[in-house]
Amino acid sequence: MKDIHIGLLGLGNIGKGVYRILETNENPIQNHIGANLKIQKILVRDIHKSRDIDVAQELLTEDAYEIINDPKIDMIVEVLGGIHPPYEYIKESLQNKKHVVTANKAVIATHGEELLKIAKENGVELRYEASVGGGIPIINTLTQSLSANQIDEMVGIINGTTNYILTQMAESGMDFDDALKLAQQKGYAEADPTSDIEGEDVAFKLSILISTAFGIQIPPENIPRAGITKISKQDIEYASQLGYKIKLLAVAKKQDNDFEFHVHPTLIPTHHPLASVSNEFNALFVRGNAVGELMLYGKGAGSMPTGSAVVGDMIEISKIMGTNYQCGAPVVGDKSTLNLIGEGSSQYYLHIQVIDKPGVLGRIATTFGKYGISLESVVQRTRGEASVPLVFITHEVDRSRLNQALEEIQSDEMIQGIKSILRVENL
Amino acid sequence: MKDIHIGLLGLGNIGKGVYRILETNENPIQNHIGANLKIQKILVRDIHKSRDIDVAQELLTEDAYEIINDPKIDMIVEVLGGIHPPYEYIKESLQNKKHVVTANKAVIATHGEELLKIAKENGVELRYEASVGGGIPIINTLTQSLSANQIDEMVGIINGTTNYILTQMAESGMDFDDALKLAQQKGYAEADPTSDIEGEDVAFKLSILISTAFGIQIPPENIPRAGITKISKQDIEYASQLGYKIKLLAVAKKQDNDFEFHVHPTLIPTHHPLASVSNEFNALFVRGNAVGELMLYGKGAGSMPTGSAVVGDMIEISKIMGTNYQCGAPVVGDKSTLNLIGEGSSQYYLHIQVIDKPGVLGRIATTFGKYGISLESVVQRTRGEASVPLVFITHEVDRSRLNQALEEIQSDEMIQGIKSILRVENL
Repeated sequence: MKDIHIGLLGLGNIGKGVYRILETNENPIQNHIGANLKIQKILVRDIHKSRDIDVAQELLTEDAYEIINDPKIDMIVEVLGGIHPPYEYIKESLQNKKHVVTANKAVIATHGEELLKIAKENGVELRYEASVGGGIPIINTLTQSLSANQIDEMVGIINGTTNYILTQMAESGMDFDDALKLAQQKGYAEADPTSDIEGEDVAFKLSILISTAFGIQIPPENIPRAGITKISKQDIEYASQLGYKIKLLAVAKKQDNDFEFHVHPTLIPTHHPLASVSNEFNALFVRGNAVGELMLYGKGAGSMPTGSAVVGDMIEISKIMGTNYQCGAPVVGDKSTLNLIGEGSSQYYLHIQVIDKPGVLGRIATTFGKYGISLESVVQRTRGEASVPLVFITHEVDRSRLNQALEEIQSDEMIQGIKSILRVENL
Repeated sequence: MKDIHIGLLGLGNIGKGVYRILETNENPIQNHIGANLKIQKILVRDIHKSRDIDVAQELLTEDAYEIINDPKIDMIVEVLGGIHPPYEYIKESLQNKKHVVTANKAVIATHGEELLKIAKENGVELRYEASVGGGIPIINTLTQSLSANQIDEMVGIINGTTNYILTQMAESGMDFDDALKLAQQKGYAEADPTSDIEGEDVAFKLSILISTAFGIQIPPENIPRAGITKISKQDIEYASQLGYKIKLLAVAKKQDNDFEFHVHPTLIPTHHPLASVSNEFNALFVRGNAVGELMLYGKGAGSMPTGSAVVGDMIEISKIMGTNYQCGAPVVGDKSTLNLIGEGSSQYYLHIQVIDKPGVLGRIATTFGKYGISLESVVQRTRGEASVPLVFITHEVDRSRLNQALEEIQSDEMIQGIKSILRVENL
């Protein structure tokens, strides 16, 4: 049986998953492609470090170029993480006419367009299924199965860390700090959780989803976003009483030529399938103009699930090696025809803390009315205390107009503070 | 731009969806494949029939062989339904070296292995994504995205008609007959609903899923199955009180060498993602040894969703036309190494109607004990009537042993009847 020679860049969490899958599922993989996926060399930081995986010492190297420049190696698997040097490694591998599989969301979100072009020029493949949603086949579904569709809407829960934290807050009544600590203990959050909890990780992934589904490039830093650090137990409880759950959502919507895209903690109706995506699970909800509603659900991170997507890509590439077929890059869209509206308008959930005196609700409602903001529901939760929460769900409104109204409301002496402003998606 | 010439066999519900998608999404499809999918000829039963779709009269023919034997046609799209003559049409098209896309579950379930072999021998593709789960990318996910996995378990809600009926029974308290009538009014059930409500349709699809995921052929008629006609409002209510929903499930499980496969109305826990798959929606839950739990959810039928899958397949084939790449048939598995246990053992829900006298529960429990059947829960629902229901959930037991115990229980004069025996999957 023919060997396909693999260079593995990285033997961390995902790298080990890839290694284990190739070992455990060697027979079915060989049956599938009629060839053997043989790891030729593995890049690690320290070849002498002790590892919880049984890998022959002679496979390891600390020199990336021993792999990237090895003419015998057919395919590079990049599972290092971070933008530099993985970007350079991927680029030079493609230029050396090696196929590349990567799980690196940061590189694909920031340099994907350029790298896909280089891959095409060099007649090799660059695949990145594992970069969004771990083991869930999101990229394949968008580029292949849904290719007969125009995508109208994508709404995703694509960060396991924050979904775990929000689930724990909702189900165990923990506050944010305790839920974060628990997530760290369980290995669902990193020691420095900033990128996850501030929504940066989701913005990287949404940028990839947008370029894959709509063919346009929105740099991650241009995606309006908010993290989950300001979500309180009270918000989750009030939302629940109103029939909603709070999830950190990545949203991209195309309506005529208006294109909306953003990352926010958002209230979604309890009965929607996305609302039952709990703990570390991820899901992408897609609406296409032919297929209608579709949802993909599974493990968005972890050694084996992410490894499953990486090895899936390796197998797809192996199947076309030696043929003159190219999967090719996703369609290039035309941003110039789209009106990029970013956040767009939305319904909002507002928690306003007020002094419990007659007339306060009337004064707030009057101010909203003055700015043309109508209210879907108002709930006053407790009574008999000096300070009480008022909870509002507005109808659809622009954020800038909402801010003007809230500024005026805040200047009223009976208003103690605007505690929360959260988007509501009535999916 | 190059034309790819399509012969469409059938202009019913799915055929119209295909036609409309090619029209509506012409531009993005052309961008994607760099060619034009041009319908050359359409087979219909009566070319003079009036239709709710605007198709040029000269495209229509009543002679299948005008299409199948036309050397200009590159690809046949079969959306007729039924086994004969579609089987013959597909076979001859492949022998004429035309690629084939079909939505025909009956043909693929009964002749798929042979047809895939003929496709391979003739260097053409046979794709059938639309045959299971309508627009949901189930086949692509199993054959491509999950190719790094060994599949351990598949549990699917893959019939929209029965899921709609069961949802209406649960949510509106309808009985089976009324829910079926409503489904027929809404177009979710056919005038003759037998194949759907008796589980035959699901058995066809499960046979395809098994051959796709496990590489082995189990003829649909060898799949143990039960339909939903005997499910009562009471069963749904009792199940709900115990924390379960009743769904018609297609199940295939591999544990070591034991292979279990069957179609039954089944109790599943309310918190499981499959439990929230409502109305006409379908979903497939898959467990792979690398990816872990994965669920695909969407519309399992309908003109446009099913058309989405058909056109997706047409695009995939178009992309490889003119290259020497073959997607090829799924892996051929080895049935001889598997122990085909069909139904296997299960937990069971039992509704036994008894005379309300002291000691009756003890007598039943004693008989279960005699046959080594232990009980997870027992609920006596009403009191103060001569006849009361007893509801049991057993621990795992073989159906044959359960039947022996129930036969003995039934012979007791205090037992008025065994009203329901349903499987329970504690997913």
